[in-house]
Amino acid sequence: MAAMWMGNHATFDTYLENGDVAFSAGRLGIKRDGDDAALFVFSEHATYAGVFTTNVFKSACVTSAMDRLRAQKKIKAVLITSGNANAGTGPAGRADTERLAAGVAGHVGCAADEVVVLHTGVIGVPLRAERWLGGLEGLCQLAASTPEKLADAARAMMTTDTFPKVSARAFQVGDTSYTVWGVAKGAGMIHPKLATMLSVLVTDAPISQRTLQRVLSRVVGQTFNRISVDGDTSPNDSVLLFSTGGARMEAGTAAFCGAKGTGVSGTDDGEVDEPLFEDALRGVAQDLAHSIVRDGEGATKFLEIVVRGAQSEADAERIAETIATSPLVKTAFFGEDFNPGRIISAIGRAGVAVSFDRMRLTLGDQRVYDAGQFLVTAESDARRVMAMKEIPVVVELGASEVEIRYWTCDLTFDYVKINAEYTT
Amino acid sequence: MAAMWMGNHATFDTYLENGDVAFSAGRLGIKRDGDDAALFVFSEHATYAGVFTTNVFKSACVTSAMDRLRAQKKIKAVLITSGNANAGTGPAGRADTERLAAGVAGHVGCAADEVVVLHTGVIGVPLRAERWLGGLEGLCQLAASTPEKLADAARAMMTTDTFPKVSARAFQVGDTSYTVWGVAKGAGMIHPKLATMLSVLVTDAPISQRTLQRVLSRVVGQTFNRISVDGDTSPNDSVLLFSTGGARMEAGTAAFCGAKGTGVSGTDDGEVDEPLFEDALRGVAQDLAHSIVRDGEGATKFLEIVVRGAQSEADAERIAETIATSPLVKTAFFGEDFNPGRIISAIGRAGVAVSFDRMRLTLGDQRVYDAGQFLVTAESDARRVMAMKEIPVVVELGASEVEIRYWTCDLTFDYVKINAEYTT
Repeated sequence: MAAMWMGNHATFDTYLENGDVAFSAGRLGIKRDGDDAALFVFSEHATYAGVFTTNVFKSACVTSAMDRLRAQKKIKAVLITSGNANAGTGPAGRADTERLAAGVAGHVGCAADEVVVLHTGVIGVPLRAERWLGGLEGLCQLAASTPEKLADAARAMMTTDTFPKVSARAFQVGDTSYTVWGVAKGAGMIHPKLATMLSVLVTDAPISQRTLQRVLSRVVGQTFNRISVDGDTSPNDSVLLFSTGGARMEAGTAAFCGAKGTGVSGTDDGEVDEPLFEDALRGVAQDLAHSIVRDGEGATKFLEIVVRGAQSEADAERIAETIATSPLVKTAFFGEDFNPGRIISAIGRAGVAVSFDRMRLTLGDQRVYDAGQFLVTAESDARRVMAMKEIPVVVELGASEVEIRYWTCDLTFDYVKINAEYTT
Repeated sequence: MAAMWMGNHATFDTYLENGDVAFSAGRLGIKRDGDDAALFVFSEHATYAGVFTTNVFKSACVTSAMDRLRAQKKIKAVLITSGNANAGTGPAGRADTERLAAGVAGHVGCAADEVVVLHTGVIGVPLRAERWLGGLEGLCQLAASTPEKLADAARAMMTTDTFPKVSARAFQVGDTSYTVWGVAKGAGMIHPKLATMLSVLVTDAPISQRTLQRVLSRVVGQTFNRISVDGDTSPNDSVLLFSTGGARMEAGTAAFCGAKGTGVSGTDDGEVDEPLFEDALRGVAQDLAHSIVRDGEGATKFLEIVVRGAQSEADAERIAETIATSPLVKTAFFGEDFNPGRIISAIGRAGVAVSFDRMRLTLGDQRVYDAGQFLVTAESDARRVMAMKEIPVVVELGASEVEIRYWTCDLTFDYVKINAEYTT
């Protein structure tokens, strides 16, 4: 377990054993073999926030999860199934998602619209949920609050991911320690696949739904929305954030809500200090986002693109995204071909006003472009930088103090292989 | 020669021998070996129009060619060199381009700003033109108006292109037959390379500079701007259009200007009928654009994307471009993996309002999506469609009569190989 999770939480196993959340993994039968269902059950209902794919072609699970968010439902359980994306399946698809939610609700003791269901997998094939309801009872009964069960659940979410992704952070408010943790799956392949990203984030800190949603939107903008494997988005991408402490706070059960009454960093209504929580959440989301890129299909290099001094954050993001999605840039890194011209050229077509006369570009520790001119890099330095597994790409534009970071991987033979091969 | 050129011009060789343009190919020494210079010399000065890369990072040759266009110069010769893009080279780079122009001008007898020079090749390396001036005299002296010389020039423009690209069309105005022809180079690799596209188009039809520029901009929008190999643009992309008849018309030498005075399809000032010319030019430009895609790095499939019924032409272009640049769509075609979900998903993230309930998608002869639902395709039909070398992808949105076409190729192992390998 220690090897599986990232973050700075020394007592994460102890937190898990507190029983705030129980986990389960099992097989419903959707995939040809192996576990295809992960379940998260909160001991009490949790406050819920979510951010969903911007693709206008949305899976039935996304519209269902968005409806629960709009109705500000408190959530008792989350079911994630893999093998079928339930996208492009019309009204019958939506009914399938709700049938699974109702099945879980029956076993954990809540209303159907207090269960969020997410799917990942093949697009355009009827899910026919009635075939899979039989496995739900065992899945729900076996749920437990152990590190092993969490590991099983994180693994059951995987498709072509090569490792499960879990991260946790602790943060302190007065005398009370709170936890933020999360799981994610990245680019995974079921025939046919999309670069589907799903993440579930949980905190025990007392936070209202409003704050939860506001902080989640900001953090996703700086983490999950700043990674690219191939520039494609799926109909299923979803990031969900739950606060178990938030529901307790709203219900007035202050026992768990350490911040209340201490007067330290708490707000009047008992919420924890927002920046403290946001930092911890950003840390967890960044861990998970980075691990999705590191586990990107076929990836051999991890690139951190820093854009500094653009005229706005939106301009900086466009520049970073254009570099991160350029096939010419990504193949050059795969080939360890020292090729700053391709990066400068990507910046030039980003659709953003840039003064090349003031621009600087640095790859690793080598300044390669300065004030309208390419600089000469010794061949040994170029080779050394390109051989690094993690390569910083720093673009300095000199027009402001704005700085953003963006993460991507290289484009490799294996990416083409994974996505070109017929796998049925 | 017959095998080399496309188009409907039965007497193209005869046209060439008329001597309106002379061609030459030779070696200046910029590349390690082989011809690296192509020359086009007009018997009299030609009217000139041009469309250039939208990349804000522009080669010195592009700014030089744009200056001549702005000054409405009549052009005597075009020099294209390969091996060095002369981009990111500052003021010294611009001086290098002008030095080559002056060199050609001295040998063909015109002013330096009546010569257009284009470069393609490595970015960010000083060109140091003084080293290459020696080869210009022989290049200019050997120019001749033969099909063999045209073939040599088209070949000297190539980098990793696997075949030279020439197309010609004839069109009739009254009793007079006019010609439009052109050459192009596509995605070619010099270390390091960009998906550089250069094209020179020529007509003997009498057309004013204004009309020439207007028609060129429209035609490029429908041809060269509707192809994608990898979504990258270079600092050097240029399409130049010359009318030898236009300059004669303006000079009042009506001998060559058959349309004048016949009253058939000619305008008052002796220009040929614009739609007739535009059709012929579009045919030539489309031939060349298609051949660039067919010769795309590593390509094994040619995809024609038709988008019909979008709310506007701009919306249709965005949808087509999103499909054409999706790595998931392009690798699926390479793998002959029948995967309509990836195309629907690309449409969904194009950033355009689309009603999926009204949408239809057809691959080859198979309707695969209709009114919000994927249709079942027999496996034998799916295999047959994916085995085709040229696959039509038709998206019908039902919101208008607008229709656009867009061309692309698949993403293959060889694309990654060509662009990842260190070639020096």
